[in-house]
Amino acid sequence: METKQRSTPCSDWEVPPHSCHTHTHTLTHTHSHTHTQAQIWEEPHTEAGSLEGVLAAVGTSSSTCCQNFIPSIYLLNDRRRVRTLIQCFSVTMSKAGGDDGGGAGGSSSEKARQPEDETPEGKVPGKLNASTSGPGWTKVSCPCCMLERVEPLVLVKLGEKVRPETKRWLIRLIGSSQKDGGAALLAHPGEDAGGDIIIVSAPRCTLLRATEELGLCKCYCSGDMEAFSYNDRSNFKDSDNMEVFLTLAERQYIVKYELDGLRAQRDLRVPGLSDSCTLQNRDNIWQKLGSAGVIIDTFPLHDPEQLKDLSKAWYSGNQLVQPLDSVNGYFGSSVAFYFSFLDFYTWSLLPPAILGLSITYFSGEVQKEVVESVSGSRVTGEGDDSGPTVSGHMIQAVFSMLWSTVFMEMWKRRSCSLSYRWGTLHLAERFAEPRPGFHGDLGVNPVTGRVEPLFPEWQRDLRIALVSLPVVGMFLGLVVLGMLCFYWAEAQVQQLNKDWESMLSQTLLYVPSVLHIVYTNMLATVYKTVAQRLTEYENHREESAFEKHLTAKVLVFTFFNYFAVLFHIAFFKQDVPLLRKRLASLLIVTQLINQATEVAIPFLVDRFISAPHRAENEDDPQEDKFRKQSTLPVFPGLFAEYIELLVQFGYLSLFSCVYPLTAVLLLINNLTEIRSDAYKICKLFRKPFSPPVASMGVWQIAFEVLSFVSVVSNCWLLLLSPRLQQLCQEGGLSSTNILLLAVLVEHLLILVKLILAVLIPDEPDWIRKKREHIDFTSMEALKQQKLQGEE
Amino acid sequence: METKQRSTPCSDWEVPPHSCHTHTHTLTHTHSHTHTQAQIWEEPHTEAGSLEGVLAAVGTSSSTCCQNFIPSIYLLNDRRRVRTLIQCFSVTMSKAGGDDGGGAGGSSSEKARQPEDETPEGKVPGKLNASTSGPGWTKVSCPCCMLERVEPLVLVKLGEKVRPETKRWLIRLIGSSQKDGGAALLAHPGEDAGGDIIIVSAPRCTLLRATEELGLCKCYCSGDMEAFSYNDRSNFKDSDNMEVFLTLAERQYIVKYELDGLRAQRDLRVPGLSDSCTLQNRDNIWQKLGSAGVIIDTFPLHDPEQLKDLSKAWYSGNQLVQPLDSVNGYFGSSVAFYFSFLDFYTWSLLPPAILGLSITYFSGEVQKEVVESVSGSRVTGEGDDSGPTVSGHMIQAVFSMLWSTVFMEMWKRRSCSLSYRWGTLHLAERFAEPRPGFHGDLGVNPVTGRVEPLFPEWQRDLRIALVSLPVVGMFLGLVVLGMLCFYWAEAQVQQLNKDWESMLSQTLLYVPSVLHIVYTNMLATVYKTVAQRLTEYENHREESAFEKHLTAKVLVFTFFNYFAVLFHIAFFKQDVPLLRKRLASLLIVTQLINQATEVAIPFLVDRFISAPHRAENEDDPQEDKFRKQSTLPVFPGLFAEYIELLVQFGYLSLFSCVYPLTAVLLLINNLTEIRSDAYKICKLFRKPFSPPVASMGVWQIAFEVLSFVSVVSNCWLLLLSPRLQQLCQEGGLSSTNILLLAVLVEHLLILVKLILAVLIPDEPDWIRKKREHIDFTSMEALKQQKLQGEE
Repeated sequence: METKQRSTPCSDWEVPPHSCHTHTHTLTHTHSHTHTQAQIWEEPHTEAGSLEGVLAAVGTSSSTCCQNFIPSIYLLNDRRRVRTLIQCFSVTMSKAGGDDGGGAGGSSSEKARQPEDETPEGKVPGKLNASTSGPGWTKVSCPCCMLERVEPLVLVKLGEKVRPETKRWLIRLIGSSQKDGGAALLAHPGEDAGGDIIIVSAPRCTLLRATEELGLCKCYCSGDMEAFSYNDRSNFKDSDNMEVFLTLAERQYIVKYELDGLRAQRDLRVPGLSDSCTLQNRDNIWQKLGSAGVIIDTFPLHDPEQLKDLSKAWYSGNQLVQPLDSVNGYFGSSVAFYFSFLDFYTWSLLPPAILGLSITYFSGEVQKEVVESVSGSRVTGEGDDSGPTVSGHMIQAVFSMLWSTVFMEMWKRRSCSLSYRWGTLHLAERFAEPRPGFHGDLGVNPVTGRVEPLFPEWQRDLRIALVSLPVVGMFLGLVVLGMLCFYWAEAQVQQLNKDWESMLSQTLLYVPSVLHIVYTNMLATVYKTVAQRLTEYENHREESAFEKHLTAKVLVFTFFNYFAVLFHIAFFKQDVPLLRKRLASLLIVTQLINQATEVAIPFLVDRFISAPHRAENEDDPQEDKFRKQSTLPVFPGLFAEYIELLVQFGYLSLFSCVYPLTAVLLLINNLTEIRSDAYKICKLFRKPFSPPVASMGVWQIAFEVLSFVSVVSNCWLLLLSPRLQQLCQEGGLSSTNILLLAVLVEHLLILVKLILAVLIPDEPDWIRKKREHIDFTSMEALKQQKLQGEE
Repeated sequence: METKQRSTPCSDWEVPPHSCHTHTHTLTHTHSHTHTQAQIWEEPHTEAGSLEGVLAAVGTSSSTCCQNFIPSIYLLNDRRRVRTLIQCFSVTMSKAGGDDGGGAGGSSSEKARQPEDETPEGKVPGKLNASTSGPGWTKVSCPCCMLERVEPLVLVKLGEKVRPETKRWLIRLIGSSQKDGGAALLAHPGEDAGGDIIIVSAPRCTLLRATEELGLCKCYCSGDMEAFSYNDRSNFKDSDNMEVFLTLAERQYIVKYELDGLRAQRDLRVPGLSDSCTLQNRDNIWQKLGSAGVIIDTFPLHDPEQLKDLSKAWYSGNQLVQPLDSVNGYFGSSVAFYFSFLDFYTWSLLPPAILGLSITYFSGEVQKEVVESVSGSRVTGEGDDSGPTVSGHMIQAVFSMLWSTVFMEMWKRRSCSLSYRWGTLHLAERFAEPRPGFHGDLGVNPVTGRVEPLFPEWQRDLRIALVSLPVVGMFLGLVVLGMLCFYWAEAQVQQLNKDWESMLSQTLLYVPSVLHIVYTNMLATVYKTVAQRLTEYENHREESAFEKHLTAKVLVFTFFNYFAVLFHIAFFKQDVPLLRKRLASLLIVTQLINQATEVAIPFLVDRFISAPHRAENEDDPQEDKFRKQSTLPVFPGLFAEYIELLVQFGYLSLFSCVYPLTAVLLLINNLTEIRSDAYKICKLFRKPFSPPVASMGVWQIAFEVLSFVSVVSNCWLLLLSPRLQQLCQEGGLSSTNILLLAVLVEHLLILVKLILAVLIPDEPDWIRKKREHIDFTSMEALKQQKLQGEE
């Protein structure tokens, strides 16, 4: 329409190599609905060959879904128009937005987002103009992927100094097919070629193929969840509508998965970069560009509409139930698993909380406990060392020990059904491509038969045994050393203070604590880097194995850091009152501080420092809104959240017999924790990528280990309890016999816990049947296939 | 040739209903080898229709293997000839005996077994006359199964009073196809219709189909082991030669599997039986006939040639290595697993034996230990309570505790590779038909989609929890009660003896022991029956689950029975010298007695009582030789053997620190045990059926549990050791502190064992890869199949 557009330099727009400088018709396939006007934007220079080429490509693709393929390439350079169109595309498709429902329901589902747009293009309804891809977006290679709207999924932030040719090259790379070494995604350069962002989306076929590669299960036409197969896509429910078929989190993760998987197919120079940054064959492009400073950040974009709905259902009201399915849909299964566990754990705290409360109440100890924990000194209560109190503590201890096993077993079952529900029960990670950072000699994978880097198992084991283990051990040693130095220094300083009693010596009293805190923090920071490096050095093939080993390393250290002092007090100092005091202060004070630092500070910073720079303006162009998301701090991951829960669980199971109100305090804490965590992830941070996972992974093991260690510590603490000792001495039992009794009880409890863990099946019966059914059909299919291969 | 044969009553021979009274040509397919003469035995009454029918049947069968189908039915009634032919068929086919190698290598592989035979048929070389089936054998329904020789696999012994019509009916049932409710096997009436035996064999197709049903893995053309598929049989190595493709044990088990799986398709009366024995629809025929007294016994037949070779390679010489593959081939995988474990265990005893020996030697205790264990009283050696001795005991204890875990983990790996090698890694039992004794309401199996009896899981769990557990617990209680009564009675009797000191009171001293032994034995006998009943009541679907639950029940009881006294001495009496005395006497005396009762007595009985009745005579007809096998006692199963090993292992791991020579004695014992067990199973008993198994099953768990319990008992015994106590008291440690130290050591050891068990992978790397490859291909196949199903 506006012929001056053609005069703009073509180089501003990414055009795939095989159809460069080709302008084709914008064909519109009308559905004989209300809106049948064909809007042709441009028609000059139509070269017959190019259309033929596209049609030929359609012919070779065997898909059954390309009912309306309308290839078109837009050549627009008007900034304003591009913005408008992206705005238009960012409107999420409503469920009704299938191919058939488009005519009637289309206009209502498109929110009036472009009122200020006066150009004729602004009024083009996406539904009617079933175009190849959005204007500005790279062309899709597969005709069945041509949807009327492209949804911006991921934003790639480039470095300040990246030159336009580099950006163009990158966009072309993202857009070209996997055969040509590209990612087969859709890329958009933002407002112009000079901008520092690239917006990435994914066409249907890439999404579906990646769904199969990841081994996600989707709803089959039979109603069961089955591992998705690209070739059989038509039998899966909603497989023609990506926004229903895959969750937003899955689509965004797939984009990241494809980008991370980009590997150079031969040695090549990146245009606009110095010669030092040439890519070698099979180099991971995304990693290399990241270290070269070309790519600063890759993060998924928030969807304001969905986010609003989600936050409404999640934490705005007084909901008791979390919208876990929506959380899974929006944030992905790893986040959803955390919140599911938090939810399950919180409700599981009810029985021990009620027991603890009633024991404390009926033994008339509430006041005393509270006073004790607040004042920090033991109230002299030698008068009330009555039998019931002691047995109350013991009941509490035994109950919490058995409770922790039952809780973990029930969680495993719940986790299993959630994983089935969310389609992550059969993740095929070990069959997929290795993770980006994986390196090794090229060879044939014995399992899948594909050529890929191989790294021998024994070499990894050797590295773990000879490098990782000693280094981790050394750091644990440093923690212990620090603690010992702290105790020694404190004793010295106290001695000094007693000898001198001056102002100086009184200030000196604080020096060891301060030094210890500084030392611990420094150690933790150094350790995090070291753990990351060690795990990279171990060269794990799967992302999950990498995560597992990294988490395990950090977990052991953090746990040691948290509990070393408590264990020292319990087992070496054998000072139960001090332990109780510490525990109460940790539970009350630390939790309060945690909540404050976790939520309040980011909230305040966000509201009063960052927000003014980020004032939302409805009139703002879409790119600027996207760009503003990148000013939010990066989501720090769930590690801190999980470790908080684990430490909580540790307080509860390891030392609960010392302080029966633990469960009550934790219950209260967690009810607010759910809300604050939800608020945090929704509002205060950039949206994180979240890989599909089948369980909590290594955290589950950590909780289980803790639950067994708790038996040892509880029995020991019960033994230490001065009232028990006194009672037994009155009963005429020698200390050796009490000890023997405690050991016997400990062994019995461990036995009972083991039996419980074995007897409660890890997966519900109905899931076991489904799994076996899948095994059976897949065995049958294998036999069938062999036969057909033979024929 | 001899026309008078046709005049014999046809009813003597089982003829399938659809081709009764049909005599067809004996066609010979010549391979253009040396022997090309076609020997036609009979040619009268050839009815064109029957041949056409057979040809039609060939047409419907889609198999690719029926290159030489030569249907023929022999009608012979000459006893002598039948015997000769059976003899001829019992010659096992040599490996070279394929269809193609038949011409050249055939004559040499046929051992001269029929020299006394003058009839022309005697000289008929089986290879050349590729006949439908042997004379007297029922006709096979599938033409590809027509082999020249039929190998007698299983003997069914009928009751004395079974009437000929019942036998005929039974033979017809065995021979008719599965569609008609039969077993699709081959049956032979022995010498005549009145005899009390039926010899059963299996045609090729039945064997192959059952191989698939059982989920056995066989060598694929690619060289890997893959789950066998009937439709894809041509791609499996040797699948046209059953005697190479399946082991003898597998073929025999398949016959039993098919016979056991016979179910009445409708209500029917068995001919020759009273009306009380009618079969209801879906009744298990074999079970019903067994309880009606028609079938007395079903057992696999020995193959004298193979047995001779096997025994030569196994126990005749001074072999250090057992021919495990041959054992697996001849006796089946469950027997082979026992002997593999025995072998592995014996060699694993070397390190602790060497350590025990050197510790005992260097601490100069050999003499003392021997004297002590023989004299039964502790030699007063208070002078030599030197440090090194104590630490030697401790080294021995710690070593044996860690050794037991490493041993079990290494065995798991070995077991895994054996199972891969023997093709039992992917047993598909849960996908197969339920075991014969299983009953329930008919329904659709949710896993396989087949109609079969279903029994809800929760009902079984309920029965286990509410019936089995209390009953087993009651019996364990009775054992403890018996022990307590024994101790009480002994104390009473000794008191009595002290008071009276008469002849009468001295004889009374033995009464408690005798009563206790009688009581224990009675209890054990009753318990065995009860355990069987309980497990049947639990109604397990799979044979392996049934075995597992039965074994677990008997195991717990037997173990309790064996170790209750030792534990009582160790933990309650805390009498280490008594424990050592008991242990030494158990190790030396009991083992000797065991070996004697296990081997010597059956051997003597066999040689001097049974053998004269069973004198082998080369001229004996084959049926009589078969019948003689039924006079051998039934193989009592491997339960006693396993429990012997477990008890041994218990002595070693639980109490080894008390008596360091345990490992040495066990090593010596086991070296003879291997031989005596091998001799026993080869010569003294009837050949047992042995189902294909993938591991030792529940025994593995029992050994592992024992290995963990051993830490507790060893630490306790070290604590009790008077020398340690003395040493510590000299060192100024209070008894509480020693106890604490022991508890600490115990926990550390358990931790180390757990870490070892986790770190050593349960399956070797190469098997993991193969398994993952199978998973991968089967996943791929599933996707493929879904697609094809759709098209």
